[in-house]
Amino acid sequence: MQPIMTVAELERFLDREFPQIHHGGRIYHVEAVGPLSARMRMDYHERHTRPGGTLSGPAMMTLADLTLYIAILAHVGPVALAVTTNLSFNFLKKPEQRGLVADCRLLKLGRRLAVGEVAVFSEGGSEVVCHATGTYSIPDRR
Amino acid sequence: MQPIMTVAELERFLDREFPQIHHGGRIYHVEAVGPLSARMRMDYHERHTRPGGTLSGPAMMTLADLTLYIAILAHVGPVALAVTTNLSFNFLKKPEQRGLVADCRLLKLGRRLAVGEVAVFSEGGSEVVCHATGTYSIPDRR
Amino acid sequence: MQPIMTVAELERFLDREFPQIHHGGRIYHVEAVGPLSARMRMDYHERHTRPGGTLSGPAMMTLADLTLYIAILAHVGPVALAVTTNLSFNFLKKPEQRGLVADCRLLKLGRRLAVGEVAVFSEGGSEVVCHATGTYSIPDRR
Amino acid sequence: MQPIMTVAELERFLDREFPQIHHGGRIYHVEAVGPLSARMRMDYHERHTRPGGTLSGPAMMTLADLTLYIAILAHVGPVALAVTTNLSFNFLKKPEQRGLVADCRLLKLGRRLAVGEVAVFSEGGSEVVCHATGTYSIPDRR
Repeated sequence: MQPIMTVAELERFLDREFPQIHHGGRIYHVEAVGPLSARMRMDYHERHTRPGGTLSGPAMMTLADLTLYIAILAHVGPVALAVTTNLSFNFLKKPEQRGLVADCRLLKLGRRLAVGEVAVFSEGGSEVVCHATGTYSIPDRR
Repeated sequence: MQPIMTVAELERFLDREFPQIHHGGRIYHVEAVGPLSARMRMDYHERHTRPGGTLSGPAMMTLADLTLYIAILAHVGPVALAVTTNLSFNFLKKPEQRGLVADCRLLKLGRRLAVGEVAVFSEGGSEVVCHATGTYSIPDRR
Repeated sequence: MQPIMTVAELERFLDREFPQIHHGGRIYHVEAVGPLSARMRMDYHERHTRPGGTLSGPAMMTLADLTLYIAILAHVGPVALAVTTNLSFNFLKKPEQRGLVADCRLLKLGRRLAVGEVAVFSEGGSEVVCHATGTYSIPDRR
Repeated sequence: MQPIMTVAELERFLDREFPQIHHGGRIYHVEAVGPLSARMRMDYHERHTRPGGTLSGPAMMTLADLTLYIAILAHVGPVALAVTTNLSFNFLKKPEQRGLVADCRLLKLGRRLAVGEVAVFSEGGSEVVCHATGTYSIPDRR
């Protein structure tokens, strides 16, 4: 299944509908979309650092949630007001103090529910630092 | 099981060890600790708003994660460097654009793992807007 | 919110629609229903035992899933063909080789989704051995 | 990372330590093990059927849990008494009344915790019917 929105369209949609995510600096970027998939990047920001030279859990959760949302939107289109119903995270490894990349793969894209998994990596790294699965509820389309 | 740290001690610990959570304004407050429980409050902040007059999912996730951490710390003491291994969220209701309160109850406080559940409410509200369960890994204590 | 089915009606529904759960012996019993809640009991059965004098994880998961289903059915009525979309379990303590009791509390009973949490205890025990949260999708009702 | 137990050794271990899983018929089979992975098969059994020509959720959960356990055991060896601490399931599609196959990939194999994801398919099918993630606690080894 092919996406129906481009990276540029998705970025414009975020800027218009979710300007608050850029509060304190533009750090979230849509990197790529593909069949049932999307990739985002989050730049390193000092507010996400934590003791021991790592990044906060919520920084990874925020990026994973956003990447799942973007993956769904890319396939459903900009009109849908999808809402998260469930998110589950496993934290596997402390990320370094660098940017993060998140790869989302949609496992299901139903009429009412979409389910996906997200793997979060340190920029340039190959090991998953956080793994997420989540469900979005998709409103009725008429 | 009684907590071994007070609200004031927990707040000082956060200020000293996690100053980054106050980036952009001091919005997180420890409200109460009790036997296997803790309560935190998050002030309303414009950066958490989302379309439709609600708050972001990550705002609720961040508060829930922090409240679970504080509940564990209150019972284990300030030396432990506990790390989240797992968090699972159900989003039940869109919160209003107000402050949030989170109540954590520890379900297990073992030697290696602590597990708790967190109910997040809108300030002054009685309905759970987000429910979380999570596990922290507790390092070996000698 | 009051349930609209009684314990006897729920048991008859299970017998009629889900006779397979009684395969190998009738061990699941609806104990009580109340406002947004339900309780079930699972008798001890040798097939659920595991090394170290405990019960299997799947025995607890099956009971928790069934109790959540019964809690929803009790409030939605026998016509609905609800399906589980998500279940998340924390295993807190090894249960003894005894019967299990599960208490479900519905956190949300929406038009399309119902969410609940379940605490599983050993019969006669007071400590939670397994904690579950789950979501059922409720089909359109006309 | 290579497994240190073979399929035959894993099957013998299950027969010896977990004879109860074969209660009512031998339906679980270790199919393959590989680097950080394992595959199991569950034969179709009438006790798992559910209304609408499908299989029960607990049948899928039991298989997923067992496959994760086998994947860990294959890499850690038969002495370890690993216990599940957390399991999270997304049910994506009703399985047909056929056998099921489960593919597990370990995301982390630490000293104390192992985390994996499991995709469950209908035998001969290519779509994931159930997706699971789980954590096992590994006892201290001396």
